[in-house]
Amino acid sequence: MMSEANANRIGNFDWDSRLAHRTQRMKSSVIRELLKLTTQPNIISFAGGLPAPELFPLREFDEACHYILQTAGQIALQYSPTEGFPPLKGYLAEVMSKYGIQVEADNILMVSGSQQGLDLLGKLFIDRDDCIVCSRPTYLGALQAWNAYEGHFYTVPLDDDGMVVEEIVPILKNGHRPRMVYVLPNFHNPAGTTLPLDRRERLVEIAREYDLVLIEDDPYGELRFEGDDITPIFRMAPERTIYMSTFSKTLAPGIRLAWVVAPKPLIAKLVQAKQGADLHTGTLVQMVTDDICQRGFLKQHVKKLRTVYKNRRDAMVDAIDEHWPEESRYTCPAGGLFLWARTPEQINTRDFLEDAVEAKVAYVPGFAFYPGEQGGEHFMRLNFSNASEEMINEGIFRLGKAMKNKLTKAG
Amino acid sequence: MMSEANANRIGNFDWDSRLAHRTQRMKSSVIRELLKLTTQPNIISFAGGLPAPELFPLREFDEACHYILQTAGQIALQYSPTEGFPPLKGYLAEVMSKYGIQVEADNILMVSGSQQGLDLLGKLFIDRDDCIVCSRPTYLGALQAWNAYEGHFYTVPLDDDGMVVEEIVPILKNGHRPRMVYVLPNFHNPAGTTLPLDRRERLVEIAREYDLVLIEDDPYGELRFEGDDITPIFRMAPERTIYMSTFSKTLAPGIRLAWVVAPKPLIAKLVQAKQGADLHTGTLVQMVTDDICQRGFLKQHVKKLRTVYKNRRDAMVDAIDEHWPEESRYTCPAGGLFLWARTPEQINTRDFLEDAVEAKVAYVPGFAFYPGEQGGEHFMRLNFSNASEEMINEGIFRLGKAMKNKLTKAG
Repeated sequence: MMSEANANRIGNFDWDSRLAHRTQRMKSSVIRELLKLTTQPNIISFAGGLPAPELFPLREFDEACHYILQTAGQIALQYSPTEGFPPLKGYLAEVMSKYGIQVEADNILMVSGSQQGLDLLGKLFIDRDDCIVCSRPTYLGALQAWNAYEGHFYTVPLDDDGMVVEEIVPILKNGHRPRMVYVLPNFHNPAGTTLPLDRRERLVEIAREYDLVLIEDDPYGELRFEGDDITPIFRMAPERTIYMSTFSKTLAPGIRLAWVVAPKPLIAKLVQAKQGADLHTGTLVQMVTDDICQRGFLKQHVKKLRTVYKNRRDAMVDAIDEHWPEESRYTCPAGGLFLWARTPEQINTRDFLEDAVEAKVAYVPGFAFYPGEQGGEHFMRLNFSNASEEMINEGIFRLGKAMKNKLTKAG
Repeated sequence: MMSEANANRIGNFDWDSRLAHRTQRMKSSVIRELLKLTTQPNIISFAGGLPAPELFPLREFDEACHYILQTAGQIALQYSPTEGFPPLKGYLAEVMSKYGIQVEADNILMVSGSQQGLDLLGKLFIDRDDCIVCSRPTYLGALQAWNAYEGHFYTVPLDDDGMVVEEIVPILKNGHRPRMVYVLPNFHNPAGTTLPLDRRERLVEIAREYDLVLIEDDPYGELRFEGDDITPIFRMAPERTIYMSTFSKTLAPGIRLAWVVAPKPLIAKLVQAKQGADLHTGTLVQMVTDDICQRGFLKQHVKKLRTVYKNRRDAMVDAIDEHWPEESRYTCPAGGLFLWARTPEQINTRDFLEDAVEAKVAYVPGFAFYPGEQGGEHFMRLNFSNASEEMINEGIFRLGKAMKNKLTKAG
C-alpha cells in the first residue's frame, strides 16, 4: 500500500490510462480555445459565433422572469418532464408549420442547446467506426459531438451552392452504409452557403434510394437577409429526417435552449437518451422563453436582427474588397453569421493566426472544420454578427495589412 | 425506389434497426414514468425526489434575475466558458473547504445537474462491458447514465450503515478491475443510509491497495437533520476521488445546476466531454445562482429546509409505526429526502403499486434501484420532502390500509 503522504500527491495519479477508448478522439474545440483570446484587451474577434449582445432583449427577459416567478414560480423551479415544457413545444409546432414543417408538439424534444441535440443523436446512432456523411468543411460542434462516439466521417465537397450531394453516391457505391447524412442547409457554418431546392430534392432522392437518415441542422434559417426561404428537407422527407433548430441565434445563447424535431418513435428514444444525459432542460428558462415567445416578440425581434446582421455582412464584404490582397475570395452569405474567406495561396491560415493575433484580430482557421483537421489551409471563418460595422472595417483592415506584409516578405 | 406516398408514411420507417448497440441497454426511467402518475388528481406521491416547492426562494430568484439582467445582462445571455462561471466556482471552492474539501476553483466543473456529471463520467471512463462497482440498491440515475455506455455493474450489499465496502474485495480478487466505485455516502438514495467513518477509511484503503477511482455522489450532504458531518471521502483520497454535489436539493432543481470536483487533469478531460455534450451550462442561471449565494442566503435557507424535512421524516416514521402491518421495517435516515421501507413478505412492491395507485398513493418499487431490476421486491422508496405532514400521514395510512387488505386476502 502507498504511504498516505505519497498517495495524496494528486498530480501523480495516472488518469490517462484509466480513460475509455473514445477519449482518444476527444479534444478541446479550437473555437473554445480561441474564445479565450477574445478576453485579451483590444482584440477584435471574428472567431466566435457570438450574436450581438447589444441586441439581447434584456427588458423582455427581465419582465418574463419576474412574471413567471410571480405567477408560476413553484413550477418554474421544480423538476419537469424530459420532453420539454408543453406550451413552448406547442408554440414551436405552430411557428414551424408556417415555415413548412408540419408537426405536432409530440414531434419535438426540447434540448439544452443544439450541441446537446448532436450529442444525443450520436448516442442513438453511432457505434464505433460507423460511417457519417457530411460536407467538408462542416460544423465543428458536430465533429466534436460525434468524435466522442468514435464515428468515422466520410466527406463530400462543398461549392458555392453548398454540399455537392451527388458526391454522396460514390461513397454509397463503395459499400459504406452511413448511419446519418449531416446537412446544414441554410447559411452553412462555416461556409455561408445555402443548398438550393434542386440539391435538396436530389438529396432526398438519394436518401430514399439508399434508405438513409438525414440530419437537417438549421440554427440560422430565420436569419435570412435576402431571397426566399427554401423548402426544408424535413418537409420533403419527414419519415427519415431529423430537424434541429435553436433559440441561440434569435433570442440568446446563454439560456442554452434548442429543439429537435423527429418522428415520434425516435422522439421516444431521444427522450430516453436525454433522461440519462441531464434529466431535462431547465424549467425556468423554458417557461421564460415561452412567455417571451407567446407575447409575439420574436417575429419583430428577428426582423431587427436581420437588418443589423445584413449591414454587418455588407460592411465585412466591402472591407475585404477594399483592404485585402487582390487574390482573396469569399462567399457572400444570404443570411446567418459567417463569411468563409479564401486567402492568397502563400498564406496558411493556421500559421497566419499568430500574425493576426499580433495585429489584435482573431478568426478560426479553416482546418478546424475538417474531420481529421486535413484541409482548409487557405480558408478562414469570419463572424460578422458580434462586432460593429466600424470594428469590422478596422479588423478586416488589420487582417489585410498583416496579409500584405506576409506576402511582401514571402515575395 | 419507394413511391412518394409510401415513403411519406412516417410511421412505417424502421428506426430500431438503425440504432447503435448501446440503445439496447437504454430505457425510460421508472421514476420519470411514475412522475406522470403524480399529475392525476388527488394522488399523494412519495415517488419523485422533488423538494418542497413552497420553500423555493421565489423572491430571491426574482430579485437576482432582475439584478443580473440589469447589471450584466449582456454577459448573462451570451455564450460562456465550458468550465463554468468563475465567481460561482470560487464561492463553491470556499464553501466546500469549510466542509473539509480543500480545492480551488479550477478543480470544479459546473454541470447541468448531477445527472450530467454522471453522464460525462460514463463517457470518460466506461468502455463496453467495463466493470463498475456500486451498492445494491443504488441510485437509478447512475444506472441510467452508465447503461448507455454499456457498463457492467458489480454490486455489493448494503446494510444499515450503507455499502458493505469489505465486499468489494472479493470482486477484485475475482480479477475484475472496476473503472470506478460509485458511492453515495450521505443519506443514500434510495436506502437513506450514511456510511460511517470507519467504512469510508476502509474504502479508501481498498481503493489505494487496488488503485481504484472513487465517485462520491453527495447531493444531500447539506440536508443533515441530526448528528455530525462525517469526513468526505474526497478529503481522505483527493488523488483518486471525484466528488459531485448539486443545487437541486438546497436551492431548486428546475435550474439544472450542479458541480463536479476532481483533480485538474481530469477536469480538463471533463471539459472536453462537456464541450461535445452541451458547450456549457446556462450563463443566466449560473450568474443568478451566484448572486443568491454570494449574498449569503443559502446557509440560512438550508437551515430552514433541514427543520421542515426533519419534521416530515418524523411524520412519515410515526405514520408507518401507527398504520402499517407489524412486520414492516424501515431505515430512519439522518438526513436527505428518502426513506427505504420493507414491506411484509407477502407483498411484492412491483405488483402492489397497482393497489397503491388505486388508493391514490405513489412510491417507487425497490426493483428500480437494482441493476438488471433483480431484487428489492419487498422494498419501496418513499420521498418525504414533497408533501405536508398531514398528507404524509394520509398517504402512509392509505398504503398501510391497502397492505392490510392484501394480507387479509392472501391470508
